[in-house]
Amino acid sequence: MTRRELREAAFEANRKLAGTGLVLGTFGNVSTADRALGEMAIKPSGVPYDTLEAAQMVVVSLDTGTVIDGSLRPSSDTPTHRELYRAFPAIGGVVHTHSEYATAFAQARLPIRCMGTTHADYFCVDVPVTRSMTRDEVETDYERNTGVVIVETIRACGHGGHDHDAVGAVLVANHGPFTWGADAIAAIERAQVLEYLARLEWRVRTLAPDAPRPDGFLVDKHFRRKHGPSAYYGQK
Amino acid sequence: MTRRELREAAFEANRKLAGTGLVLGTFGNVSTADRALGEMAIKPSGVPYDTLEAAQMVVVSLDTGTVIDGSLRPSSDTPTHRELYRAFPAIGGVVHTHSEYATAFAQARLPIRCMGTTHADYFCVDVPVTRSMTRDEVETDYERNTGVVIVETIRACGHGGHDHDAVGAVLVANHGPFTWGADAIAAIERAQVLEYLARLEWRVRTLAPDAPRPDGFLVDKHFRRKHGPSAYYGQK
Amino acid sequence: MTRRELREAAFEANRKLAGTGLVLGTFGNVSTADRALGEMAIKPSGVPYDTLEAAQMVVVSLDTGTVIDGSLRPSSDTPTHRELYRAFPAIGGVVHTHSEYATAFAQARLPIRCMGTTHADYFCVDVPVTRSMTRDEVETDYERNTGVVIVETIRACGHGGHDHDAVGAVLVANHGPFTWGADAIAAIERAQVLEYLARLEWRVRTLAPDAPRPDGFLVDKHFRRKHGPSAYYGQK
Amino acid sequence: MTRRELREAAFEANRKLAGTGLVLGTFGNVSTADRALGEMAIKPSGVPYDTLEAAQMVVVSLDTGTVIDGSLRPSSDTPTHRELYRAFPAIGGVVHTHSEYATAFAQARLPIRCMGTTHADYFCVDVPVTRSMTRDEVETDYERNTGVVIVETIRACGHGGHDHDAVGAVLVANHGPFTWGADAIAAIERAQVLEYLARLEWRVRTLAPDAPRPDGFLVDKHFRRKHGPSAYYGQK
Repeated sequence: MTRRELREAAFEANRKLAGTGLVLGTFGNVSTADRALGEMAIKPSGVPYDTLEAAQMVVVSLDTGTVIDGSLRPSSDTPTHRELYRAFPAIGGVVHTHSEYATAFAQARLPIRCMGTTHADYFCVDVPVTRSMTRDEVETDYERNTGVVIVETIRACGHGGHDHDAVGAVLVANHGPFTWGADAIAAIERAQVLEYLARLEWRVRTLAPDAPRPDGFLVDKHFRRKHGPSAYYGQK
Repeated sequence: MTRRELREAAFEANRKLAGTGLVLGTFGNVSTADRALGEMAIKPSGVPYDTLEAAQMVVVSLDTGTVIDGSLRPSSDTPTHRELYRAFPAIGGVVHTHSEYATAFAQARLPIRCMGTTHADYFCVDVPVTRSMTRDEVETDYERNTGVVIVETIRACGHGGHDHDAVGAVLVANHGPFTWGADAIAAIERAQVLEYLARLEWRVRTLAPDAPRPDGFLVDKHFRRKHGPSAYYGQK
Repeated sequence: MTRRELREAAFEANRKLAGTGLVLGTFGNVSTADRALGEMAIKPSGVPYDTLEAAQMVVVSLDTGTVIDGSLRPSSDTPTHRELYRAFPAIGGVVHTHSEYATAFAQARLPIRCMGTTHADYFCVDVPVTRSMTRDEVETDYERNTGVVIVETIRACGHGGHDHDAVGAVLVANHGPFTWGADAIAAIERAQVLEYLARLEWRVRTLAPDAPRPDGFLVDKHFRRKHGPSAYYGQK
Repeated sequence: MTRRELREAAFEANRKLAGTGLVLGTFGNVSTADRALGEMAIKPSGVPYDTLEAAQMVVVSLDTGTVIDGSLRPSSDTPTHRELYRAFPAIGGVVHTHSEYATAFAQARLPIRCMGTTHADYFCVDVPVTRSMTRDEVETDYERNTGVVIVETIRACGHGGHDHDAVGAVLVANHGPFTWGADAIAAIERAQVLEYLARLEWRVRTLAPDAPRPDGFLVDKHFRRKHGPSAYYGQK
């Protein structure tokens, strides 16, 4: 991928994110990374989605975090994205939204529990909430430290080398959701499904807070229908 | 009906389902069956609704379950649909969605109770939830066994030869709703009304969980206004 | 007004009602009456809103309830509308919907309480729920008796000759809302506001079921800003 | 700014408000003020948004409250707006809506608590509810007194000369929200964000009413990212 293609991909992804209805005003952002280039491209800070242009995407070094190309400031969340790219080399796209239901769970500091097969089709664990950040973490390098607590939360799920794929999304406490994937489009799809699952889980909790969880073998069945060597959902 | 017409009918029904807003991404599917042909046509697995073409619909034998016509894999839920067609010869269409409110009830393992006349206009009983499936049922022939528990749930309502019409919809535990009807269009209409009723019932449960049920004679009156020999709703 | 104008007015009102989003499928109906003609015009039964034509509106005698003009069956709710027109001579339009939040209150058998100034701008009392209908009332002349219990509920509010205007809407228990007004357009506006108020009241009840009511003098102030001789809202 | 430009700005702001979906029917209004002119322009009372014209905007003296220019009655809420302009000279726009979630909090008499970073990006305190108005305040000069209790509520937050900016929005008890800003567009943006925050807070309260609040240093960090001398969100 050339740097121009990287910027185009980030632009297309941000346009797609705006079309999902998951973002309001200038909230949220999506980035995409190319490992061969060692670069990521991200939305400029505070620019409304409807006036975005591909040339405004800001290219940042994955290694140093400095702006390589672009005349605007990158999203203030750039160090958070970069921390995720550095921790998990298989990730090619990161999305942050303030989508309404997932953010409500982040504010309530409640995980989005796996209560059904739709959840298991995408995420094989509950979507976790990070711990609160310390005063030091907030006052110095806040956005990088946001990435640090996300990575810490993913690793705590204990899925080893594949945990970023098994987890797929984290709710930052009192803030909102981050998702990732092999590319930016996959990360956006996860952000959409996460919001759908948050809507379901909110209704389940208000209807029957003590409803039994699905059996583990049902969850495994659905996750493996779509992921890994024995997947049989979709076309070959 | 020719096989080509069967495929066209399935295609039109899937397009119509997509237009209802009951499905997200590639979730959900609708099939249609022709008893003279002994065949059903269904959506291919994992194909987005907006790129569907009639020629992609997959034709499957009702008798053997094998693909008769089509180059794509059929929906992974095909054996569930087929089990319903085999149990109830009067059914000509089956719909599966992950519609948001009905799926929340499936995840909460709560029936959608008949709390008013709109419910009684379409369904004369509570919309039931299946039992949990066993490990064996999930690990071997999962999709066919999903149909088995749906049929078991319908029969348990005790409406005899007409129970599939009296029940009309079932929530598969921790999964989501299935509906059926004389044809695919009728099954889609039931899926839409079911979702509407789930929205109402969610609000009733959060407002007044102990609200009294409507009298049986009121429920009967509304069901019989629209169904059976004494119906007088609509045009002759 | 000529009979043709009456039919046109009913047609326009039904089209307008469809545009409000308060009706799903063939649910709901609006009628309009002309006192000089002694006739009302109403939607035909079970006809979808998007295929309605003015010539399909059915004209019914207010005095006898028989169809005077039209080749289709009138809405099955026609006797309910007629009962309201006969009880309150100042009414020129009646609307029935299954709008989602007002119907949830009807199913929960809870009034929509006056909890704020928006309610008081339109209705000076809580929107009441009817009593349950008896077996006899349901099994014989059901639709007319639905009107009878609505009228009974309005009169019980004790506003004398003007009670139909002070009340403005009633929830039929386990069924749904009816509204009325000087003409069909005013009745539709009330149906829209009623649904808005039901959404608010649902949230108030889930947030703070014991929240204090607004003071009576605040409710009176708002009702009188828009109604009666001292009104000063809007243009002269 | 000329008076014609003031009227144009008020017209554009009212059109923009209608496009946000925060107003229903003729509810709500936005005004804009010019301090050099000593005038404000506001929506005429009871006129639907879709028929508004710039020439219908009513110009009112900030000093005396009398109509300076315009043939229609100004919004009945004009004295409330004027009271805010008089108390806080830095305000250039005021918005009043009956937006559904913020109004539900006003009716429940509950503040919209600061439970996350999205709230802190816009408002550094809980959005407060006014006290109830007295009988005298309602019966004499009701609309002006509505402004008086809003100002009283803002001042009680104790942010000194900048409290109108720190607070940014108030819920009038049993009525609805008012927002303000440097100009009408900023006030509309706050009204939109307020409604978004009310939706989140409603879900948080139904999910976890006792969820811990975000740490003060996290709230400060976010407010200061967007406001004041150390802001670094957006472009320079």
